Amino acid sequence: MTTVGILGGGQLARMLALSGAPLGLRFLVMDSVDDACAGQFAPMVVGDYRDEAALGEFASRVDVATFDFENVPAESAQWLSERVPVFPNPRALATAQDRLAEKTLFQQLGIPVPPFAAIDTRAQLDDALATIGTPCILKTRRLGYDGKGQFRIKTPADADAAWDALGAQAGKVGLILEGFVAFERELSVVAVRGRDGEFRTWPLTENWHVDGVLSASLAPATADAALAETAFAYARKLGEALDYVGVFALELFCRGGELLANELAPRVHNSGHWTIEGSETSQFQNHLRAVLGLPLGDTRMVGLACMLNWIGQMPEAAPVLSEPGGHWHDYGKLPRAGRKVGHATLRADSAQDLAATLVRVGVELDREAQVAPVVAALG
Amino acid sequence: MTTVGILGGGQLARMLALSGAPLGLRFLVMDSVDDACAGQFAPMVVGDYRDEAALGEFASRVDVATFDFENVPAESAQWLSERVPVFPNPRALATAQDRLAEKTLFQQLGIPVPPFAAIDTRAQLDDALATIGTPCILKTRRLGYDGKGQFRIKTPADADAAWDALGAQAGKVGLILEGFVAFERELSVVAVRGRDGEFRTWPLTENWHVDGVLSASLAPATADAALAETAFAYARKLGEALDYVGVFALELFCRGGELLANELAPRVHNSGHWTIEGSETSQFQNHLRAVLGLPLGDTRMVGLACMLNWIGQMPEAAPVLSEPGGHWHDYGKLPRAGRKVGHATLRADSAQDLAATLVRVGVELDREAQVAPVVAALG
Repeated sequence: MTTVGILGGGQLARMLALSGAPLGLRFLVMDSVDDACAGQFAPMVVGDYRDEAALGEFASRVDVATFDFENVPAESAQWLSERVPVFPNPRALATAQDRLAEKTLFQQLGIPVPPFAAIDTRAQLDDALATIGTPCILKTRRLGYDGKGQFRIKTPADADAAWDALGAQAGKVGLILEGFVAFERELSVVAVRGRDGEFRTWPLTENWHVDGVLSASLAPATADAALAETAFAYARKLGEALDYVGVFALELFCRGGELLANELAPRVHNSGHWTIEGSETSQFQNHLRAVLGLPLGDTRMVGLACMLNWIGQMPEAAPVLSEPGGHWHDYGKLPRAGRKVGHATLRADSAQDLAATLVRVGVELDREAQVAPVVAALG
Repeated sequence: MTTVGILGGGQLARMLALSGAPLGLRFLVMDSVDDACAGQFAPMVVGDYRDEAALGEFASRVDVATFDFENVPAESAQWLSERVPVFPNPRALATAQDRLAEKTLFQQLGIPVPPFAAIDTRAQLDDALATIGTPCILKTRRLGYDGKGQFRIKTPADADAAWDALGAQAGKVGLILEGFVAFERELSVVAVRGRDGEFRTWPLTENWHVDGVLSASLAPATADAALAETAFAYARKLGEALDYVGVFALELFCRGGELLANELAPRVHNSGHWTIEGSETSQFQNHLRAVLGLPLGDTRMVGLACMLNWIGQMPEAAPVLSEPGGHWHDYGKLPRAGRKVGHATLRADSAQDLAATLVRVGVELDREAQVAPVVAALG
């Protein structure tokens, strides 16, 4: 009997557990809150990741550990990895947690990135603004736990305000200035790499965000094969450079037929939720197969799939459940503004059918604006 | 928040819970043993179904109840149904529990059945033997909890031995004599009926048993469309007659192009396990949709699927996981002779591909005999 430990007990942990049960696995989830939604289907250890007693109890009860949450402190991941196997490895996690390390790695691997610069002092900010130009964004290198830590600089005159807001972080977590990309499309590669280095990707996915939160995904993206191959090659390079084991997502901007790397997510990813019904093997099961050293499953898809995120509260289920290719995912969370509480996946055999399905669902749920860009992309 | 109660905590309850989690449901499982495998993914009430205190606690914690186990005492189901909605209804359950009531219903509905007769006395046994002929089988009307209760009569000279073995049961649970059917194939219809009477079936499935236990299923069965339509019509009649809500299976014998009803299983069924990956909507999710009054999901399948049951102990997973359409289901049970501990589903786009997959898996797992009849049926 193998028990997989998951740090973080949100919907990703929940879907990992549901997907891994058929492999005969047991799960143990660790989260700082006792009503984390994965706890409805898996036993939990409630505690802070920095609490060695709680983390020690977690370690003593699992055979292997992985993540639902990418911002587990790197030192906690390291401490854990000295006691049980941890996938992805703490170095991969640490790289993805640090915007500067991540973008530097992209650059080293020849993966195009928007212009960026490390900022330690006010003088460096002025220099970087001169080089990168505006608009651009000043960010902390690591995510602040309060969800803040970004300042949009529209003109050089905003530099004072940006420094007032974030300058104090320069000596703590560090800052990075990133050029703003006027992209046409956002794409993602969801990929899996096995313990033996085997590498597979699902079809390229196109994503739409609203207020910085994923709203809809479409797979396969309406991209030409060469663009997809380039994206897959970037993901493969990253996986190899980090000796990555498990599923990760590479978020990309597309501008004038060129791809620019935006971010590496070192875990199963919201833009891969459609794989549950849309692919022979879901990202969740393939993550577990990879982590356990089992053969990876086929990532082919049949037809097309669109995922719609439900933010804040769940809409009515019936319009989606009434669609022949309609699948519902309620994460069992309480409603809360801005919270990802569920998603739907709509599958169809043709772009025309999928567009018609989306139009119906959009009208019935009064969410025409959410489906509109996907319908437009489907032509 | 809706909590679905499931009487019985085996693999069917486990797969119901895993399949229903995305609908935002919670589950509570009741079983007489505390290590029932559904308890790995759902909270449990441990107790005997006849224990009113335990059943009362169960009832107080659920919004609706259903079954993993068809031999829940009819009076327990009735008691429960006076407290919470129970689907399927206790009458459907009671009919399926009683071989005589079940076969009488088949006959009333014009569904062909093998010859049968109720036996209350030794004289009736002799009369029925003269009418039905040998070989035939003397059975208790209801399943004995010890799994016994059947006696094969090869010649009329076996009548004494049969009566010695089962005669004492005549005045208790009652007996039935059933003519033996030299069938060519075993088929099953897995069907779902909603609260509003909507009726859907998955494609007809062909089944192979070994020592009375399901060994393999193939969907769609290699049957002509007219035969399938006849089978579906029988299932629809049964569903309507019993005002059935949820998934059920109708097991059929096929002899010379004719169908004879064998048994009604008032629950999700082993011969429908392939629907998890092989159909747009699994039997497990559609059972829950029906029980909750939600729209039923599409039952179409793409390609072909074969389910192989694992009895006694799990084989090695890698040969199945290495197949592009290979899916693994380990129920998390301890090995035990004769116990259903898991299954695999193999999917393919063509009969030829599926046959080749099965041959590979059969060789690698040293289970050539298990896959052979399916490969033969695939031509």
